[in-house]
Amino acid sequence: MALVIKLSGRVFEDEELVFKYAGVIRNLSGKVAVVTGGGEVARRYIAIAKRGGASNTFQDLLGIYASRLNALLLISLLKDAYPRVPANIEEFLEAWSGHRIVVTGGFQPGQSTATVAALVAEAVGASALLNAANIDAVYSDDPRRNPNAQRLRELKYDEFEKIIRSSSLPGGYELMDVWSISILKRNCITTYVFDGRRPDHVVAAARGENPGSKITC
Amino acid sequence: MALVIKLSGRVFEDEELVFKYAGVIRNLSGKVAVVTGGGEVARRYIAIAKRGGASNTFQDLLGIYASRLNALLLISLLKDAYPRVPANIEEFLEAWSGHRIVVTGGFQPGQSTATVAALVAEAVGASALLNAANIDAVYSDDPRRNPNAQRLRELKYDEFEKIIRSSSLPGGYELMDVWSISILKRNCITTYVFDGRRPDHVVAAARGENPGSKITC
Amino acid sequence: MALVIKLSGRVFEDEELVFKYAGVIRNLSGKVAVVTGGGEVARRYIAIAKRGGASNTFQDLLGIYASRLNALLLISLLKDAYPRVPANIEEFLEAWSGHRIVVTGGFQPGQSTATVAALVAEAVGASALLNAANIDAVYSDDPRRNPNAQRLRELKYDEFEKIIRSSSLPGGYELMDVWSISILKRNCITTYVFDGRRPDHVVAAARGENPGSKITC
Amino acid sequence: MALVIKLSGRVFEDEELVFKYAGVIRNLSGKVAVVTGGGEVARRYIAIAKRGGASNTFQDLLGIYASRLNALLLISLLKDAYPRVPANIEEFLEAWSGHRIVVTGGFQPGQSTATVAALVAEAVGASALLNAANIDAVYSDDPRRNPNAQRLRELKYDEFEKIIRSSSLPGGYELMDVWSISILKRNCITTYVFDGRRPDHVVAAARGENPGSKITC
Amino acid sequence: MALVIKLSGRVFEDEELVFKYAGVIRNLSGKVAVVTGGGEVARRYIAIAKRGGASNTFQDLLGIYASRLNALLLISLLKDAYPRVPANIEEFLEAWSGHRIVVTGGFQPGQSTATVAALVAEAVGASALLNAANIDAVYSDDPRRNPNAQRLRELKYDEFEKIIRSSSLPGGYELMDVWSISILKRNCITTYVFDGRRPDHVVAAARGENPGSKITC
Amino acid sequence: MALVIKLSGRVFEDEELVFKYAGVIRNLSGKVAVVTGGGEVARRYIAIAKRGGASNTFQDLLGIYASRLNALLLISLLKDAYPRVPANIEEFLEAWSGHRIVVTGGFQPGQSTATVAALVAEAVGASALLNAANIDAVYSDDPRRNPNAQRLRELKYDEFEKIIRSSSLPGGYELMDVWSISILKRNCITTYVFDGRRPDHVVAAARGENPGSKITC
Repeated sequence: MALVIKLSGRVFEDEELVFKYAGVIRNLSGKVAVVTGGGEVARRYIAIAKRGGASNTFQDLLGIYASRLNALLLISLLKDAYPRVPANIEEFLEAWSGHRIVVTGGFQPGQSTATVAALVAEAVGASALLNAANIDAVYSDDPRRNPNAQRLRELKYDEFEKIIRSSSLPGGYELMDVWSISILKRNCITTYVFDGRRPDHVVAAARGENPGSKITC
Repeated sequence: MALVIKLSGRVFEDEELVFKYAGVIRNLSGKVAVVTGGGEVARRYIAIAKRGGASNTFQDLLGIYASRLNALLLISLLKDAYPRVPANIEEFLEAWSGHRIVVTGGFQPGQSTATVAALVAEAVGASALLNAANIDAVYSDDPRRNPNAQRLRELKYDEFEKIIRSSSLPGGYELMDVWSISILKRNCITTYVFDGRRPDHVVAAARGENPGSKITC
Repeated sequence: MALVIKLSGRVFEDEELVFKYAGVIRNLSGKVAVVTGGGEVARRYIAIAKRGGASNTFQDLLGIYASRLNALLLISLLKDAYPRVPANIEEFLEAWSGHRIVVTGGFQPGQSTATVAALVAEAVGASALLNAANIDAVYSDDPRRNPNAQRLRELKYDEFEKIIRSSSLPGGYELMDVWSISILKRNCITTYVFDGRRPDHVVAAARGENPGSKITC
Repeated sequence: MALVIKLSGRVFEDEELVFKYAGVIRNLSGKVAVVTGGGEVARRYIAIAKRGGASNTFQDLLGIYASRLNALLLISLLKDAYPRVPANIEEFLEAWSGHRIVVTGGFQPGQSTATVAALVAEAVGASALLNAANIDAVYSDDPRRNPNAQRLRELKYDEFEKIIRSSSLPGGYELMDVWSISILKRNCITTYVFDGRRPDHVVAAARGENPGSKITC
Repeated sequence: MALVIKLSGRVFEDEELVFKYAGVIRNLSGKVAVVTGGGEVARRYIAIAKRGGASNTFQDLLGIYASRLNALLLISLLKDAYPRVPANIEEFLEAWSGHRIVVTGGFQPGQSTATVAALVAEAVGASALLNAANIDAVYSDDPRRNPNAQRLRELKYDEFEKIIRSSSLPGGYELMDVWSISILKRNCITTYVFDGRRPDHVVAAARGENPGSKITC
Repeated sequence: MALVIKLSGRVFEDEELVFKYAGVIRNLSGKVAVVTGGGEVARRYIAIAKRGGASNTFQDLLGIYASRLNALLLISLLKDAYPRVPANIEEFLEAWSGHRIVVTGGFQPGQSTATVAALVAEAVGASALLNAANIDAVYSDDPRRNPNAQRLRELKYDEFEKIIRSSSLPGGYELMDVWSISILKRNCITTYVFDGRRPDHVVAAARGENPGSKITC
């Protein structure tokens, strides 16, 4: 069965973490698709472009280019991955049909890399999406602002969607947006959300353990 | 200023209508981007693929291919349009930088052609998006099911989003989904929704008249 | 050895038939290339474009796009086929070098999908071309107009060429045109022509049986 | 109006001739498409590949590559031509939509560059196809073998097709094959055949004069 | 006449400088090609990849991706530039044939962006290459290590090549390597080297003034 | 381990030699990348373009096209090689990730095919580069002009670089230029230089024998 791993752009701000993820992914058995966020480089270039009056389209394209830089860095460390970064789902499917590991960044403006991960999970018929996030689990509300926010070990996509819509969840957009949720729900793909600083959680989630939150349809 | 016209796939089920739209678009001054829906061919192929157990990814790709067939038909009637159908926003931007008229269909799975139209409107800095729809205006609820539904002449995107989320508006998805609304809103692009069987409404809307509903930020 | 199957566009007008062909192709051993016709969607779009004054080039491109829609539908049902539709022989060869099953539609204006099938058969060094046609065999003349037309069980390409040139064979163009015959002849590839409504005939022909007509050099 | 010029591959065996054609083409007014044959380089590589057991597909691809080398040579001398060699009709149309001069070689296996020229003439809605050939006109039979062969100043495509089919016209294939004739006939494009060693004949034919033979529908 | 501007990657570490260069380039008359270095992002990603054991090929590709990010940022601020980043000289030539401004980053492994700038200058027949460098002029030796190093106002490529080979010029590689010098020399293109923190020097050099060093063949 | 073989363009001027190299390469075990020079066809087209006033960019592109013709010829004789000619290192890496044998020609203007071979050797992590040259070994000087030139059986890259820089080695440029040496040196790849008329030397060098000169870092 195929796994899809979504790596928060923040992973790429810590090189030791990048090396550890490369090691973990190399050792996974079966096929693996990885989707990388843009992180700090993306934020910096988008901010400059915005200040300079660039369109939203180009701001988003800069974020996509930055996410591809992260994807290529991971590819360079994996040795046996597909050697290029697919630019859309058709290129991804072609790469996937001939390689065990394919790493991709963003696809197009107006779309988070969380949504790319959902589209990729749908395309490969993934058994699970592993979301290495900027937070250690899904909470009922933003734990940094709301001390009563509850850590949710298991939840349904409908519930998750309500939280995303209503709450002030930190990094909510990056964690997973409404569009990515609707894609995962229509395919009944299980999502695991866990702390992106723990590459070992990938191994756990790949075994079916729940290192943070588990979301099902 | 650039105009973006979204043609419902149903337009392509009536060849006289296709000829009239071709005529209207040829005569518009300024730059024009057209986004075509998939219509009946899309629905038929998606239904077969679904029955045969194809993935959502391939079902959506079939809809995209059908929308490109419609796009190419329109191109074949326009003479001076860009002669190919761009497959994503980067190809679209390249075509747009050198041609007065560019016609495109769908871009990728999990995304309506209404969203493509919004992305294109954002990319070209459109003054307005003209949505030649399956309905003659935006209503407060589905007029076919709710006899008290009110025809809305002018509304804000926030209001529109609430209607889309809550109502049983017929063809709601095709008219405009939440994602396309958020893109148009973030760029403050005015949308005109009008009866797709009236190509003359394109001319009216291009002059700033409101032949159906007008949505602003 | 490699097989090439040419599916008449009419196959795609009957979804049960499409499912059956998908099943038969999945179960064939060895490498398989499939070439799909455009069928009714192609005819409809070409007719509209023609009425609207489109060039022959665009009329043919619309037929090609329609044939690619059929090719993608088949791919969506096959699971392990190459996931894209090659647009020319170079893309086809690249796909073929890494996949067991490749499905393609038309290649270029002024060329039938029968000719594409012949070019593909030449490129893969096919042992046989299986033509799932709109007729159950080759006849000495059009059986619907000439009651004395003889069903031909075995014939040579030279003989076949004479029939194509002189007769009023129904769907003659689609069955096989002069150009496709010359390509098959120069490679001495055996062609089997049989009733496209009988997917089981593919299995028979793959075993070397003759379910309709057999044409040799 | 657009002109299409077909340059026999032999033109490229004489560099002075190449320079003269470049000069003539630069000075033509209006849009010009040029299609180049493969000539001696093509013949040499095809012969080696054949002796070495290469497939017909690769033999033809070698001829196409050689014709593209000739196309690029001409482009390098034209300065304001589209700077690349389109590989198929879709790439050609894209280049044509933005440039005054586009030069192309062969498109695909199993197809002469005469047929490419016919497809290009159809695609651009050419007023005329100027065939700079290896012979100075169309003859009723091969003048080198049949001393009674008559030089034909004007003829119809139907007549031309009969000659091509039956005669032993030297270089018949290269001059124009049946497929290219059928494409030109269906578009009623006038063809001028003239001695390829006379670049000045291009100027004459562009003015509507007949420097060799004139073929009409 | 066409100008080529080489922007050191360091320019992109100071957003005000980026805005100023965008303004200067927008206001230049005539055609302009810009080549961007990779700067700090490139250095950071290359260092991580190296530590992680990536090949030189991937290290260089990461630098190229980073330079393309810088190129896209500049494009996003220029409005009327070609909207994509060409990946090689053939894509560059195609973009150049239809646009006033084209911005590109690196082309391939084992090659500095100084060499890309030289190749681009050769391809467009540039009147001059404007090198906005990390140093204010060419010196006879590294001015930071050798207090006697002389600032050279005018020099020949042969002289420049000797300095590059022998000296410990800071950032020597980025300023201009041997390969880029040989390309510029074979085309007799004048190079101006000046302080990259001074966008106004581009205007001066475009007028033929020498704001730093001038190198001729 | 992967081998890279650089075939001098002269190999393609003798068809028997081409057949023998095809046989030798087919029988090698392990992965093999082949880089072909342009030879006589390249020289002829470059000379014409130069005389006609073409830019250095186009002269070099013609040489690249000619080298790709040679690459395709070899592919046509190998049967199981990747069926296309990669145009740059990214396309090469993609082809390499799925095929045992990949054949390529030149990549870009201003670069010898010796440098392409070095870049390819770096990209595949080659154990050795086998240079089938126009000379039987590396000499301390040009043996045709200097009768005292010494044949060097083993040497270091630093030594080799000095010879290349200072000597009048015949075909020096084609044998290996400074840029290719620097790439090979930075990767510590062993190069074998031997007489290109001896395909059997490939087998010897593949076994680690030294059929001419051996260069190490």
